[in-house]
Amino acid sequence: MEPSHDIAHLAHVEIYTDRYEESLDFFTRVYGLKLSAEDGQSAYLRAWDDYEFHSLKLTRHAHTGIGHVAYRAASPVALQRRVEAIKEAGYKVHGWIDGDLGHGRAFRFEDPFGHTFEIYYETVRYSPKGEDAPALKNTASAFSGAAPRRLDHLNLLASDVSEFRRFMETCLGSRVTEMIQLDNGRIGGCWFTVNNKTYDLACTEEHGGGNGRLHHVTYATDQREDILRAADIFLQNGVHIETGPHKHAIQGTFFLYVWEPAGNRVELANAGARLILAPDWEPIVWTEADRKKGQAWGLKTIETFHTHGTPPTAKEQ
Amino acid sequence: MEPSHDIAHLAHVEIYTDRYEESLDFFTRVYGLKLSAEDGQSAYLRAWDDYEFHSLKLTRHAHTGIGHVAYRAASPVALQRRVEAIKEAGYKVHGWIDGDLGHGRAFRFEDPFGHTFEIYYETVRYSPKGEDAPALKNTASAFSGAAPRRLDHLNLLASDVSEFRRFMETCLGSRVTEMIQLDNGRIGGCWFTVNNKTYDLACTEEHGGGNGRLHHVTYATDQREDILRAADIFLQNGVHIETGPHKHAIQGTFFLYVWEPAGNRVELANAGARLILAPDWEPIVWTEADRKKGQAWGLKTIETFHTHGTPPTAKEQ
Amino acid sequence: MEPSHDIAHLAHVEIYTDRYEESLDFFTRVYGLKLSAEDGQSAYLRAWDDYEFHSLKLTRHAHTGIGHVAYRAASPVALQRRVEAIKEAGYKVHGWIDGDLGHGRAFRFEDPFGHTFEIYYETVRYSPKGEDAPALKNTASAFSGAAPRRLDHLNLLASDVSEFRRFMETCLGSRVTEMIQLDNGRIGGCWFTVNNKTYDLACTEEHGGGNGRLHHVTYATDQREDILRAADIFLQNGVHIETGPHKHAIQGTFFLYVWEPAGNRVELANAGARLILAPDWEPIVWTEADRKKGQAWGLKTIETFHTHGTPPTAKEQ
Amino acid sequence: MEPSHDIAHLAHVEIYTDRYEESLDFFTRVYGLKLSAEDGQSAYLRAWDDYEFHSLKLTRHAHTGIGHVAYRAASPVALQRRVEAIKEAGYKVHGWIDGDLGHGRAFRFEDPFGHTFEIYYETVRYSPKGEDAPALKNTASAFSGAAPRRLDHLNLLASDVSEFRRFMETCLGSRVTEMIQLDNGRIGGCWFTVNNKTYDLACTEEHGGGNGRLHHVTYATDQREDILRAADIFLQNGVHIETGPHKHAIQGTFFLYVWEPAGNRVELANAGARLILAPDWEPIVWTEADRKKGQAWGLKTIETFHTHGTPPTAKEQ
Repeated sequence: MEPSHDIAHLAHVEIYTDRYEESLDFFTRVYGLKLSAEDGQSAYLRAWDDYEFHSLKLTRHAHTGIGHVAYRAASPVALQRRVEAIKEAGYKVHGWIDGDLGHGRAFRFEDPFGHTFEIYYETVRYSPKGEDAPALKNTASAFSGAAPRRLDHLNLLASDVSEFRRFMETCLGSRVTEMIQLDNGRIGGCWFTVNNKTYDLACTEEHGGGNGRLHHVTYATDQREDILRAADIFLQNGVHIETGPHKHAIQGTFFLYVWEPAGNRVELANAGARLILAPDWEPIVWTEADRKKGQAWGLKTIETFHTHGTPPTAKEQ
Repeated sequence: MEPSHDIAHLAHVEIYTDRYEESLDFFTRVYGLKLSAEDGQSAYLRAWDDYEFHSLKLTRHAHTGIGHVAYRAASPVALQRRVEAIKEAGYKVHGWIDGDLGHGRAFRFEDPFGHTFEIYYETVRYSPKGEDAPALKNTASAFSGAAPRRLDHLNLLASDVSEFRRFMETCLGSRVTEMIQLDNGRIGGCWFTVNNKTYDLACTEEHGGGNGRLHHVTYATDQREDILRAADIFLQNGVHIETGPHKHAIQGTFFLYVWEPAGNRVELANAGARLILAPDWEPIVWTEADRKKGQAWGLKTIETFHTHGTPPTAKEQ
Repeated sequence: MEPSHDIAHLAHVEIYTDRYEESLDFFTRVYGLKLSAEDGQSAYLRAWDDYEFHSLKLTRHAHTGIGHVAYRAASPVALQRRVEAIKEAGYKVHGWIDGDLGHGRAFRFEDPFGHTFEIYYETVRYSPKGEDAPALKNTASAFSGAAPRRLDHLNLLASDVSEFRRFMETCLGSRVTEMIQLDNGRIGGCWFTVNNKTYDLACTEEHGGGNGRLHHVTYATDQREDILRAADIFLQNGVHIETGPHKHAIQGTFFLYVWEPAGNRVELANAGARLILAPDWEPIVWTEADRKKGQAWGLKTIETFHTHGTPPTAKEQ
Repeated sequence: MEPSHDIAHLAHVEIYTDRYEESLDFFTRVYGLKLSAEDGQSAYLRAWDDYEFHSLKLTRHAHTGIGHVAYRAASPVALQRRVEAIKEAGYKVHGWIDGDLGHGRAFRFEDPFGHTFEIYYETVRYSPKGEDAPALKNTASAFSGAAPRRLDHLNLLASDVSEFRRFMETCLGSRVTEMIQLDNGRIGGCWFTVNNKTYDLACTEEHGGGNGRLHHVTYATDQREDILRAADIFLQNGVHIETGPHKHAIQGTFFLYVWEPAGNRVELANAGARLILAPDWEPIVWTEADRKKGQAWGLKTIETFHTHGTPPTAKEQ
């Protein structure tokens, strides 16, 4: 089956925070995103080369975690095709919303694990003005020297990754590029893409008894050196560095994970020149024996990486 | 109009050389490609993470230049759709060939400027064995430490870039991502893609009176540092460095151009995290006034970059 | 003869500007230095890992150029030894000054080409406080993410480089590490060091008819990538990039030259792991034939690099 | 007290191996050193920019560990001064040896923990010929693209680091740049330098009950990226990566530790632009509380790093 191409790309993620001011300070001053707008409830953020109005919506909330995940469709017709497919599939549907500061009407639906998704086509392109106008007209706004160039991917927790995979293939036409096959037969983790990126969404098994939880959100950097420099910036600013910089065995991504002040995990990542260009790419399957070797250069995965999600569950606290 | 997605990606390029042994030594020992096979006439080469049998075919010939350009289709059905479209368009058709060491039957046709193209679906995946087996199962072969990770793009010369653009849109369903608009109304250069890469083929105006000429072929590196290191390797090996390392204004690519021993121009390039994800991307248009500013950091484009193509014409010699 | 070791290192440079506010904005906001103090006349600046109070003194003046060059002695005794040697040598002596915000009493003298030098031992170490306290106690202040880590070297113009060499060897006990030998027998340029750095001061031949002029001042970055990133920051901020990034043949330094708003040339440079460790290092001699090959990777040296110094002379204007 | 400057720099280290062929293959083909000469017993190796004949002597032996450590004196007079100082200090003296392939007569002595040192002045500069002649005359031999540029430092184990410090200050005139002060009052580790390098020899407390043991030997790379690339080369060649790449809190060095086939620990390291230029540098003192924070970016030090030395002791096996 050919990939559907109906969905163009991951567009934005809404993150909840119960320490809004500190989270906003982190994302703008330390992590390096730019503020497009702010209303009483949310901040609309983007990396310097994200072409849309926002790729991260940071929202005041009673707890941390994820508000919703948004993908942009390839065309109005493609959007309509997806909406039909989702309705037929029997997943929980929230229906159409009018839109947001950064896009037009969007269709909302839910995976079986409590995460809300939306798809839309009409978007608001970010229009840089004054000092934010880029020196080169093929970039979205002024180069800031900060690490993140564009939104890259997110990782969601689900108690049944196989079930989540069905959801992604059915609703978004996603392809699986890599996966973890546990000895017990279950899928421990699964990496998806709707385009040539190696992945735009990953799902790993929920071990904390939670529902609808977030594992992390990631922005891409141009170079690995940007991540090494960011590590020193995080260190200087007292940010909790959870693990990295190191290289994942799965997907080969160079990574660095930190916790923003409210506790949501955020990553900086660099995939080098790696893309999935083969139209008939077969998912790479990693076994438990493979995983025991640790990350690519031998780093053992830190315990909290398996247990910490947001919002935290009773188990974690 | 939605992108067609019938063509998956640029697959390989055939380069002619009249100094075969020296060219092969350059591509394997200095530039860092791997040899998949060699018959009396040609060497089949690939970068360490190219998944197909070859991405560069180096062929003994009376002169330098380009043999053919190959794209891989997304599926057998997509291949058939493209073949129909090409036939209907009235471009010169060579018809089906049986295939080559690296792929099955391919359909050959020609642009109005003498470059031969082929499209195919059935491929031969490279099967690494022994010492060439990769340590990580999601890479195509053993990491060699060399700069090139995968084939990136090529640049062809044409006396009428607008006409070439029509050819690319019609035959391959390519999108234009950036272009140069000359003051005289002509298109001076045009950058095309069939997927999320920022470009996989560029066409610039032929000023040497030639036909079917090559400007350059390029491999992608994981990091800009790989290119700086390669510059020292080229220097040490007496390779002619034409220009760079520097950053293009157009496409923002970090680049380095050298001439292999027979005179064909080859490039190493790094695009960082830049991708074309917007389904409704509007081509970036550069004017002559823009071009006068030189490359991104002010480097003036070297004269030979405008005049040297392969094979050389009487004008150049 | 053993190196004297009386002089420990290049300590600071005073730069004149006739556009003080713009120059200060450049050095702090764009180039990435930190402000230690400011009085009505001067700003005292340093890179994040300079241990002294200041390494650059930016002073309001009727024209651009250099105020003075300061070296720190290895001890009070070594300082005294140097003062005696300078007095005996017959160079023009200004005598002792009381000191400045960043150091105690200093002995001032002059080279035959109008540049003022000073040497001192008693210094004021920079004491980081509050947000400027470093996360790691072995660095001088908070890591800022900016390119310059510490002062590296400066380049002065002189009409007779051989004469200048005598001055440096006599007054500071400097060693010559590399030099340019012109076909006419003159020394075209000379690179000096008082320690294991490959050079801390260079002198090149004055071609503009000026006296006491500055060619450039340079800070060192940790990585070459810092310089590539800085190039984009300069581009974004409309700074005149004169030449680079590229690699010098002489000394092998990776470089980038820009002009600060008042016109003084400043550089960012990275020498990698290169040090002069051999106690009996013989100066590397470059001929005119060598120089014709351009910089390490073939870049032709830009014309202004030979003509522009500060203050500008009638010849340049 | 002023630094003595009698000793110019760390010159070479002799490593023992009981798997000579495999160790030699590792150091040349994987780690990236060059072979200057080989006799029946030893291989003489150097990095591409080491100016002396060898910086590593790899010797067949009944067990792993260290043969001797060599420093080059600043002059014949300085050598003589050091010899007198060593004799007076009462340390165990082996006396003069005739020299080796890479240097002239050397004076040998021993620290109280069984490590043999030698100092010499007369050296054999490496003379590159043919393909090993460098493209740039200011480098010692042809650039190979490999990670190590020059010998950087070594680390020795001693049961009493304070005693070892006295030895280094007395015999070599070394300065302490950083140290670990344990809660029990002992020095846990000490970093020494004889020049502007941040350290050329470190000593850490022996916990395995051994005598005269080696912790590791390190070569410097030009860039951090060289180390990331080397990690992939080690991975591909099945080399045991013990820990890293990461950044040390102490000295701020970017590091990667691997075990060569016989079990000796070797490191690649990059210090960026960091140098010790202050003549009155006060040692940075790290407490146990500091150490509990792990490495600079939070990595916990791996257990074997505290226990593994060569040759292994009964405790480790």
